[in-house]
Amino acid sequence: MSAVERKLDDIKSTIVSEVPNDISVSDVKYEGPELVVYTKDPKRFASDGDLVRQLASKLRKRITVRPDPEVLSRPSDAREQIMSVIPEEAGVTDLDFHPDTGEVVIEAEKPGMVIGRHGSTLREITQEVGWTPEVVRTPPIESSTVSNVRNFLKQEREERRDILERIGRQIHREEMSDDEWVRITTLGCCREVGRAAFILNTPETRVLIDCGDKPGAEGEVPYLQVPEALGAGASNLDAVVLTHAHLDHSALIPLLFKYGYDGPIYCTEPTRDLMGLLTLDYLDVASKEGRTPPYDSSQVREAIKHCIPLEYGDVTDIAPDLKLTFHNAGHILGSAVTHFHVGDGLYNVAFSGDIHYDDTRLFNGAVNDFPRVETLVLESTYGGRNDYQTDQEDSEETLKEIIRETTTEGGKVLIPAFAVGRSQEIMLVLEEAMREGEIPTVPVHLDGMIWEATAIHTTYPEYLRDDLRDRIFHDDENPFLADQFNHIDGGEEERQEVADGGPCIVLSTSGMVEGGPIMSWLNHIGSEEKSTMTFVGYQAQGTLGSRIQSGWDEIPMNDRGNGRGTLKLNMNVETVDGFSGHADRQGLMNFVRTMNPRPEKVLCVHGDESSVQDLSSALYHEFNMRTFAPKNLETFRFK
Amino acid sequence: MSAVERKLDDIKSTIVSEVPNDISVSDVKYEGPELVVYTKDPKRFASDGDLVRQLASKLRKRITVRPDPEVLSRPSDAREQIMSVIPEEAGVTDLDFHPDTGEVVIEAEKPGMVIGRHGSTLREITQEVGWTPEVVRTPPIESSTVSNVRNFLKQEREERRDILERIGRQIHREEMSDDEWVRITTLGCCREVGRAAFILNTPETRVLIDCGDKPGAEGEVPYLQVPEALGAGASNLDAVVLTHAHLDHSALIPLLFKYGYDGPIYCTEPTRDLMGLLTLDYLDVASKEGRTPPYDSSQVREAIKHCIPLEYGDVTDIAPDLKLTFHNAGHILGSAVTHFHVGDGLYNVAFSGDIHYDDTRLFNGAVNDFPRVETLVLESTYGGRNDYQTDQEDSEETLKEIIRETTTEGGKVLIPAFAVGRSQEIMLVLEEAMREGEIPTVPVHLDGMIWEATAIHTTYPEYLRDDLRDRIFHDDENPFLADQFNHIDGGEEERQEVADGGPCIVLSTSGMVEGGPIMSWLNHIGSEEKSTMTFVGYQAQGTLGSRIQSGWDEIPMNDRGNGRGTLKLNMNVETVDGFSGHADRQGLMNFVRTMNPRPEKVLCVHGDESSVQDLSSALYHEFNMRTFAPKNLETFRFK
Repeated sequence: MSAVERKLDDIKSTIVSEVPNDISVSDVKYEGPELVVYTKDPKRFASDGDLVRQLASKLRKRITVRPDPEVLSRPSDAREQIMSVIPEEAGVTDLDFHPDTGEVVIEAEKPGMVIGRHGSTLREITQEVGWTPEVVRTPPIESSTVSNVRNFLKQEREERRDILERIGRQIHREEMSDDEWVRITTLGCCREVGRAAFILNTPETRVLIDCGDKPGAEGEVPYLQVPEALGAGASNLDAVVLTHAHLDHSALIPLLFKYGYDGPIYCTEPTRDLMGLLTLDYLDVASKEGRTPPYDSSQVREAIKHCIPLEYGDVTDIAPDLKLTFHNAGHILGSAVTHFHVGDGLYNVAFSGDIHYDDTRLFNGAVNDFPRVETLVLESTYGGRNDYQTDQEDSEETLKEIIRETTTEGGKVLIPAFAVGRSQEIMLVLEEAMREGEIPTVPVHLDGMIWEATAIHTTYPEYLRDDLRDRIFHDDENPFLADQFNHIDGGEEERQEVADGGPCIVLSTSGMVEGGPIMSWLNHIGSEEKSTMTFVGYQAQGTLGSRIQSGWDEIPMNDRGNGRGTLKLNMNVETVDGFSGHADRQGLMNFVRTMNPRPEKVLCVHGDESSVQDLSSALYHEFNMRTFAPKNLETFRFK
Repeated sequence: MSAVERKLDDIKSTIVSEVPNDISVSDVKYEGPELVVYTKDPKRFASDGDLVRQLASKLRKRITVRPDPEVLSRPSDAREQIMSVIPEEAGVTDLDFHPDTGEVVIEAEKPGMVIGRHGSTLREITQEVGWTPEVVRTPPIESSTVSNVRNFLKQEREERRDILERIGRQIHREEMSDDEWVRITTLGCCREVGRAAFILNTPETRVLIDCGDKPGAEGEVPYLQVPEALGAGASNLDAVVLTHAHLDHSALIPLLFKYGYDGPIYCTEPTRDLMGLLTLDYLDVASKEGRTPPYDSSQVREAIKHCIPLEYGDVTDIAPDLKLTFHNAGHILGSAVTHFHVGDGLYNVAFSGDIHYDDTRLFNGAVNDFPRVETLVLESTYGGRNDYQTDQEDSEETLKEIIRETTTEGGKVLIPAFAVGRSQEIMLVLEEAMREGEIPTVPVHLDGMIWEATAIHTTYPEYLRDDLRDRIFHDDENPFLADQFNHIDGGEEERQEVADGGPCIVLSTSGMVEGGPIMSWLNHIGSEEKSTMTFVGYQAQGTLGSRIQSGWDEIPMNDRGNGRGTLKLNMNVETVDGFSGHADRQGLMNFVRTMNPRPEKVLCVHGDESSVQDLSSALYHEFNMRTFAPKNLETFRFK
């Protein structure tokens, strides 16, 4: 009997002795980080609301109870009973029975009503039918990404169960080493922005945090080939942890599966879906530009299949000596500050990922409240001594003023924007301003992946700012469903119509004017003197966006756009900053200042050379902590 | 045709075009870092003294010329001719012909006379007989280690040639990467003394520097299992470089071959022989103490077979982007400061190994004169703020006083000493003092490996201090051959005789009284009140030596010695410091101070926590350079 089996046996004995005698325990299995208890008496189990909680706290594990397949009622019977328990207002749109595990997946417009207060309705369902309910939200706006991911995972359910069991046994393996140390190796995004990738390493465990590419520098990828990364074999990684879905953090995650990795990817549920959306688009763009993508869509599917979604605040065992907890990072949907607790009180490391410290319209500000953090790995995008951003309130005023002026002249406002994050923030600004009559209510056309990304946002309102979440639950208050928003899904024809029409606002990708439908919009309305192009996001050097900002008015239209030759740009060009998804210098300092306790060491990463040096030096002088501005390919040892 | 072959072909064309038309070039091969040119006209080749030198400088390679086997004269004829060329005073003791490579190994008591002024006699030999002569010294004192190593290498000659050719092709492979960086990973001996091991790593190349154990802490071995060491496979190492033969630097070198390593070990010739002696003894001690050694003698033989001996000052290509040069370190026989030149002027790193900065009786002081060194990895054994040693002159006076007093009383002086280094230093002190009449000429008995180690010293007088080297060349002045030195080779019986006799001096291993014949000497004379035990070397905490120093006079005699139970120690106990093989604090500071140019960065290693911190801080404050006191398992990136 292996050590893992012996441990499972011990756990089973504990469970048997803890539950009342008349409740049978037929099997206990690992499923990823969770423990699944199979019972022939699921209804009895469910009738004691505290039982699972007691077991979980006794065993210090997340526990799911499932019915032994032998005792399952017929799905057709169960369906009726379930529907009679759930209030009609919940808006159940689908029930999906899985006899192999005794689970029933309930898709509903209002999942909260299926769950009930403290899970009371869920327990009632089990008490009635024995099946274990799992609830997902029906996207308020239809999202092909969400439905593709869900269908794919349904189809791969059986293989996924095998994967999760294997991962579970791996997580709960016996510790092998008496040594105690913690190391971080920097594989990318040090003294640069892009290609985020770090190795967190103990004598037991090796975890990769993020695996991104470097925008504008194809081929500059993280140093995965060095032995401390995957050089010793991709299978030597225990886990991959993804802080958020932006490509400079996620683009090369699927590549790991080409290299033979077959372990878990821990991320939030929205990060999983957005990663699917963005990496598939990444492949699409690469092939449109005639580059050979480093992997194909089958590896994206592998990545999604290996995702283990975690919610903010879940403390999760991901290795014998490592606990992982995600916290809201305020940057984009599902973005997480990632906290690792090493050993039994040995050491704590947090990776900020990308953060926004203050609340925005979309998200609450980043969480910096951890029981302990000895070392913080902190993003420094705006860490430079002069990197202060305009207050968003002032920025919004400027944007509204531009819109008022342009529309009064009968012009159109063209806003290049990233599909994920900034677009939704701007949508919220526009919706409110129109509702309050501060700007005229004109059509707002959303082009590129913006609509799809917005749909994903509405699928996961738990990840949005409290008041926004509450509004989304009410169809008539969901700001993203406001009438003036129009999803451009009619291609060139629809764009031509819009161009020929009256004043309007167009939000279109790509955010740095490096391809995508924005090129077509430039073709259509770029020559209109009364219209205004308005930049609301960071334009990296060398991009067309940055050139237009700096005054270029002759635009070479290559085959990325739809035109040929050169386009004369007559539009007004405006820039409104202050809508960044990143904390500015003050936000980064505040993030550290308000930590309690503060970390002993801070590694400043994810910023250009001067930003990381400036931030590192400021943190050192202000808080008297040890700070570093690492280079790529260094290894730091803690403990 | 592979890139390596293409390059060899180019080289051959260059050689053909450089040598006169009437000299044929039949083949060109790599043999380790050297280039071997085979010719049918070896005599013509040899007649032009400058030809090889010109080729070497043109190709920037070390070049050896050998006769095409087709044109070799018969060994019996050649032998006669060779003997007629070499002056009789050279004392040739053996000629060994190798028809496969056209080499003749000449063993002589005075190799210099076989070589002649600027190699003139060697060239004369080739001009006469065509064979390529190689000269080795007949040990002035018979050494079983030297003769075993030489016989073994002779026997493995053919396999060794294959190994060298493989290594040669590896060294001269094409560079693969456009990246440029240099990293050092610390695998041991950081904030501690012992288990020296470092990885020097570029995008092309991975080199292990030293691989020692930690005395007094069995099982605390270098972190070879981490991926940046051998975790990615021992075959991922390009080369192993050994600074000197002490076990805390060499003990685990043979283990690498158990792990599958089959590349070169670069070291000096005496280091190779001493490593053989010391690692075999290491296995012997382990098995006597009932421990299971981590490898066996077959791996020691593999290690010796893979040694590529280099002389001080030889600049050697060991990888496409790495040149290695050894310099005298002044610590023990063959010890080397190790200089790496990375890329074509990209970066320079020196590892001090263990050093003695000032001249001693045995060795010239450590060399610190390099064209360039950006980073120095510096030993810090005596780097603490109070680690100043007594001047050796004063120490010698004290030792002589102790000897005078003890022998006057009719007692014996028992000196525990390390076989390699300190014993020979003390022998030189005693020989001179007796010759000059400063102490009475009494027998000096040498027990344990001391005699063998001394024999190895006399085999390589080039590695000794200038004046000592000159004296060794004259039998009647060789201080190690002085009449009073007696090698204890008669076991317990001889020791009993000595113990029963009159005043004498006994030098015996082990140096820290942790086993070996010293235990037997304690048994024989430990109870004599008129005799004196005199410590001349460092006694690590926890060793019996350190306990006796601190006043213990009841000695538990376990089966390491020959006695049983407890021994009452009545001898006087004295300690004379100042004979260390390590630079003291002042020496270490001077080593850095007199470097020109000084390095930008210094990593202080090989010292306990406070020593490395003190030295690091002192170097920073005095020379305003970046200094570090690394932990094990950190990676530093330069460039």
